Amino acid sequence: MDTIKESVSDTVPERGRSRTGGRSGRVEQRANATPPRKPFINRKLAPFEILNEEGLNLIEGNADRLLKEIGMEFHDDPEILDIFRNAGADVQGTRVRFEPGMCRKIIQATAPREFQQHARNPANTVTIGGNNTVLCPAWGPPFVHDLDRGRRYATYADFQDLIKIHQMIPHLHHSGGVVCEPVDLPANKRHLDMLYAHIRHSDRCFMGAFIGGMRAQDAVDMAKIVFGEDFVANNAVLYNVSNTNAPLVLDANMSGSLKVYARNNQPVACTPWTLAGAMSPVTVAGTVAQVLAEALATLCLVQLINPGAPCLMGSFASTISMQSGAPTFGTPEAGKMVLACGQLARRLGVPFHTVGTLSASKVPDAQAEQEATWGLMMSMLAGANIVNHATGWLEGGLVTGYEKTVIDADLCGKVSAFFDGIDLSENAQALDAIAAVGPGSHFLGSAHTQSNFMSAFYLSTIADNNSFEQWSSEGGLDAAQRANRKWKQLLESYQDPGLDPAIDEALQAFIAKRKESMPDQNYY
Amino acid sequence: MDTIKESVSDTVPERGRSRTGGRSGRVEQRANATPPRKPFINRKLAPFEILNEEGLNLIEGNADRLLKEIGMEFHDDPEILDIFRNAGADVQGTRVRFEPGMCRKIIQATAPREFQQHARNPANTVTIGGNNTVLCPAWGPPFVHDLDRGRRYATYADFQDLIKIHQMIPHLHHSGGVVCEPVDLPANKRHLDMLYAHIRHSDRCFMGAFIGGMRAQDAVDMAKIVFGEDFVANNAVLYNVSNTNAPLVLDANMSGSLKVYARNNQPVACTPWTLAGAMSPVTVAGTVAQVLAEALATLCLVQLINPGAPCLMGSFASTISMQSGAPTFGTPEAGKMVLACGQLARRLGVPFHTVGTLSASKVPDAQAEQEATWGLMMSMLAGANIVNHATGWLEGGLVTGYEKTVIDADLCGKVSAFFDGIDLSENAQALDAIAAVGPGSHFLGSAHTQSNFMSAFYLSTIADNNSFEQWSSEGGLDAAQRANRKWKQLLESYQDPGLDPAIDEALQAFIAKRKESMPDQNYY
Repeated sequence: MDTIKESVSDTVPERGRSRTGGRSGRVEQRANATPPRKPFINRKLAPFEILNEEGLNLIEGNADRLLKEIGMEFHDDPEILDIFRNAGADVQGTRVRFEPGMCRKIIQATAPREFQQHARNPANTVTIGGNNTVLCPAWGPPFVHDLDRGRRYATYADFQDLIKIHQMIPHLHHSGGVVCEPVDLPANKRHLDMLYAHIRHSDRCFMGAFIGGMRAQDAVDMAKIVFGEDFVANNAVLYNVSNTNAPLVLDANMSGSLKVYARNNQPVACTPWTLAGAMSPVTVAGTVAQVLAEALATLCLVQLINPGAPCLMGSFASTISMQSGAPTFGTPEAGKMVLACGQLARRLGVPFHTVGTLSASKVPDAQAEQEATWGLMMSMLAGANIVNHATGWLEGGLVTGYEKTVIDADLCGKVSAFFDGIDLSENAQALDAIAAVGPGSHFLGSAHTQSNFMSAFYLSTIADNNSFEQWSSEGGLDAAQRANRKWKQLLESYQDPGLDPAIDEALQAFIAKRKESMPDQNYY
Repeated sequence: MDTIKESVSDTVPERGRSRTGGRSGRVEQRANATPPRKPFINRKLAPFEILNEEGLNLIEGNADRLLKEIGMEFHDDPEILDIFRNAGADVQGTRVRFEPGMCRKIIQATAPREFQQHARNPANTVTIGGNNTVLCPAWGPPFVHDLDRGRRYATYADFQDLIKIHQMIPHLHHSGGVVCEPVDLPANKRHLDMLYAHIRHSDRCFMGAFIGGMRAQDAVDMAKIVFGEDFVANNAVLYNVSNTNAPLVLDANMSGSLKVYARNNQPVACTPWTLAGAMSPVTVAGTVAQVLAEALATLCLVQLINPGAPCLMGSFASTISMQSGAPTFGTPEAGKMVLACGQLARRLGVPFHTVGTLSASKVPDAQAEQEATWGLMMSMLAGANIVNHATGWLEGGLVTGYEKTVIDADLCGKVSAFFDGIDLSENAQALDAIAAVGPGSHFLGSAHTQSNFMSAFYLSTIADNNSFEQWSSEGGLDAAQRANRKWKQLLESYQDPGLDPAIDEALQAFIAKRKESMPDQNYY
């Protein structure tokens, strides 16, 4: 473009648009348009840096001091103590102390900066690390909530329904793990059913079993049935989280699964889990140093067990109410902590795992979304590579909400569009369009608007932007009530991705055999 | 600190804490503690940069091209055309074209980078510019909404109640302007009553009348009664917004008040008001270039009228639904636009005015706070110096919500705490505290927690973080229902700041005289 083309009008008259069918045609086109699904977010915007170099050095120095002067305890797992002793750490009882820089050096020598987790549908394989972000659904709640049935214990039927809903949400990238805890199944066997449901009803990536080496081995064995033994030996197919028992403890439930996954080349997100004021100091700087110390020791363990095994620095750090001691989420301090942890993970050189739309609210209300929006935005600005609990969390993680899931999913779509950054193409600069419309006119029917309207703006699936009158005539539903309709639509329109019958049969045989091998238990 | 003092336990045993009264004493202390009110936010965190140097140069170049090749129209105000002609612009009819760089040069020569707006209570005087942010309540809605009375036309009683509620919210810094449109008063006289209500019921800064030179002069005259003629001549005491009629028009209603305020040294926020896809191109890059062009021409006008008069680059840029044409808020694209505009304002060297918790929702629900949180966070990250509509906006600006006001106010408190950044003092680093607690223990009763709990975390006024059981036993209220109680408490606890009776009398006499001078009109 040499000069702005004011002389050429690109305003299309209201009549005579038979080709596109006019506005009603456009509306229909748009409503039916499925935007191309991204298998993960590739962030075009740099992370937000809350600490400067000096601050980061200070926190890193403090983490090193904690590891040298206090150390970390590894409970009920003598093998780990031997591993650390052989690597040169100072082991006294279950307490392991590290010289400054030791953990960092071991991690940086072999841990990959980026890796792929493979889905059984290759189109859903995700890249974890770099500028990429993978969004996962809620993890762990023993209860579920929806407007029709209220709050109740979760069942395996809920578990399957949630997986199907998640599979239909384009802005989630991962099937997750314990999308709710199916408490109607025996506690010691339900991991088998959960893994099966992910494999059977979703063709996205999924997570391994969380607690204990035996269950982790089950997950690896089932993955081998799906992907083949050789493939699993050399590729990440199970995503796993290992939480510390802050402050400064890793117990055998966590180290047991960590060892199995690390030895099988499956990724482990080493994730200190802390509520500042309870499991870490009541300050951001103190908590972040403790988180880094715990992550360093645990990541170092992964690399000592299997140099080169994929691993992530994790952070689940929130706050408590100073009035009641209750956990609080979406707080200013939680935002500061995740931003600092993201910077520390990048400096360490491993991908960053964190959490998303957390809320203490009991219902999908204004509190829920104020906290959820705050939390997910902070994690995205922190440069998270994988966001657990990107949808559905209510009540401090006790509840997976059906309505909250789809309201949060809309937010996931927003952040995905936001992190695409600003298109600076000639079409997006739109100088000719401005010239053609001219001062005092409008762009509603302009050719530029018409040719861009399909992709111009993110289309919310939950927001009601209509007039009060129209909204009232449609029942005056609030966002939660609209979301109630939405998750039912998703569930009804669920498309079974199918599963090779031979694999299905082999999985079911494996599960049956494993279930037969032990009595039911309703504790872990 | 030389070594971490693990040997000295700072954990206070559960008993024998008679000095502080134990946990119940702490809870009481905390509940009664009023955190020191900040007259405005001083951001310790750098703004988020969405465009790089190349992108910013491109947008600035495009704005220059728009001003040269298309120009801007100034309707029904020949004086302005003369002013521009005398300054060397190319004036043809009402169209004014500017050589590249002309506006920027004129603005940068004389416009202040930072200034103070004075409140009648000096403790509430605000600094506008630099790293400071001033949060203002909603502006302009003809309707109000609360849970008891529903959605209804706003009255002067609402106007006064909202001012009193705002005055009681520590996280707002400004009394604002048309907090709702009191439609029970004659349209041509209600500005007098509105200004009086701000002066009488609040001791914070307030805004001048918006539309037309005559009303602006009334505002200046009333300010002189309050502050004294000399003081007003030399100090900013009225904050004012001048909206363009995008694309590329300024009308006489806006230019009329702009001229009065500029000549009286009162600040004008030159604020293109656009919904991309309707009043600007359907793209972010195109909209931002148009916003910058309109702002440059209008800011240039202010400086030509009165070199050195305080002025701000404003941005009110959101989107429309491509399905219905309805305005949409809290969108990814609106976020991108405000971030880019913030960068452009900083490069221009004038303070940045923008908008906050906008939503298209009809009620204070999950949609309302997802959009509100998104919008306010983006404006804060954009480095906004003043945020209009930081509380209360519903229904695309048609409604000021009472419940939404206090829910948003809580968010204002959160952003204020967040932008304090991370405390890196030795106390905040908390190494001794971690050592004293040690691995596997907890920080709940530790001396460090006790000595910091009063200021440790932002205390939400709306969030319910209690257990489901406790929440249920307290009525199972959602955030909007709790907010309903909250605004009533604020209104009941309103403290009249008082007003010098002589000033009050003089104001009332002025208002009576002005009202007598013209017949009532119910149009502007």
